[in-house]
Amino acid sequence: MKRVAVILSGCGVFDGAEIHESVLTLLHIAKAGAHYQCFAPDIDQLHTINHLSGEVMAQNRNVLVESARIARGEVKSLRELNVADFDALLVPGGFGAAKNLCDFALSGANMVIHEDVFTVCHAFAQAGKPAGYACIAPALIPQVYGQGVQLTIGNDTDTATAIEAMGGSHVTCLVDEIVIDEKHQVVSTPAYMLAQSIVEANTGLEKLVNQVLKMCK
Amino acid sequence: MKRVAVILSGCGVFDGAEIHESVLTLLHIAKAGAHYQCFAPDIDQLHTINHLSGEVMAQNRNVLVESARIARGEVKSLRELNVADFDALLVPGGFGAAKNLCDFALSGANMVIHEDVFTVCHAFAQAGKPAGYACIAPALIPQVYGQGVQLTIGNDTDTATAIEAMGGSHVTCLVDEIVIDEKHQVVSTPAYMLAQSIVEANTGLEKLVNQVLKMCK
Repeated sequence: MKRVAVILSGCGVFDGAEIHESVLTLLHIAKAGAHYQCFAPDIDQLHTINHLSGEVMAQNRNVLVESARIARGEVKSLRELNVADFDALLVPGGFGAAKNLCDFALSGANMVIHEDVFTVCHAFAQAGKPAGYACIAPALIPQVYGQGVQLTIGNDTDTATAIEAMGGSHVTCLVDEIVIDEKHQVVSTPAYMLAQSIVEANTGLEKLVNQVLKMCK
Repeated sequence: MKRVAVILSGCGVFDGAEIHESVLTLLHIAKAGAHYQCFAPDIDQLHTINHLSGEVMAQNRNVLVESARIARGEVKSLRELNVADFDALLVPGGFGAAKNLCDFALSGANMVIHEDVFTVCHAFAQAGKPAGYACIAPALIPQVYGQGVQLTIGNDTDTATAIEAMGGSHVTCLVDEIVIDEKHQVVSTPAYMLAQSIVEANTGLEKLVNQVLKMCK
């Protein structure tokens, strides 16, 4: 049975992991007969957004603790992730990927990836184990894989420009398609960077998961 | 296009709506070509559970605000729900259904359904519009539909006994099946009352949604 590590970044599109993308990623891993384990960094969120009003809330929350909501309690700290135990990595999107896993939402091309996140993502890359990134999470790819790596965040010009400035090669992509970098063994899909419905997001995510599983050695 | 109202009860299995069940319900509504609108009661949660440790947290949260995480901001207060605007109702589970929509988790067969929730659920029943309840949410069905209504929460004896005490007729059901009460136009499925995986939950929920849509006039 293939074993997949999934990195969550909280619980909610505006300050954490996008919930639909996260659940659909887990669904397609399990549907394909693979096993998943969720992980998240044990850090405070950048902030907490009231998802009804869009305003910042006074109470802050922990990324690992909130990720546990999506994982039904079954989530571990990223520091416990041993790459040798897994065949592949998947990173759903949501603003949490750009606010908690790194600071792309604040710093754009000058972003820094959180140390625990970089360590894990880089180890998968170095091991030649396939990885899939969805939505805004592909913003992590250039710093993890280096110059010339191919990826997509859909078709947003500003975001694509920032990704090119970090050394990534951005490929425009339809919502229900994926971009495969065979050399680096990394796959990406726009998901809710473009999706107008959960069905559109689901189509790209299903392809992403199945492609990553296909690339497992 | 069929229009479905979905009642959420927060965001997270232990104190709110079960996230997998909620997302999969939305997925199957949309996949069937129907439209959904999420609603939630604008009330405080019973309490907030740290989903990593299982402990109660000091900070309390609002059911409508937290439900907005699952709905990507697109959720309305239950008081805005006009039954005439919808063809069907779906209620995912999670402890939120038994802690926030009613107090079944505390009071068992002596439970009271929150007024806003009862008003809406009862109006769908009175209008003869089909409804689907998943997981522990079918605990609402006896008080909404009255004596003899058929439903399932899976096979848990204590829960089934409490449901029978409220006048419901409990039918034992496999995780990937549904119980249909044709007379009352209400359908139920065990979902995570029994599911050992997201795939098991998904199978029952897909049947639930498709059956409810099939019953729409």
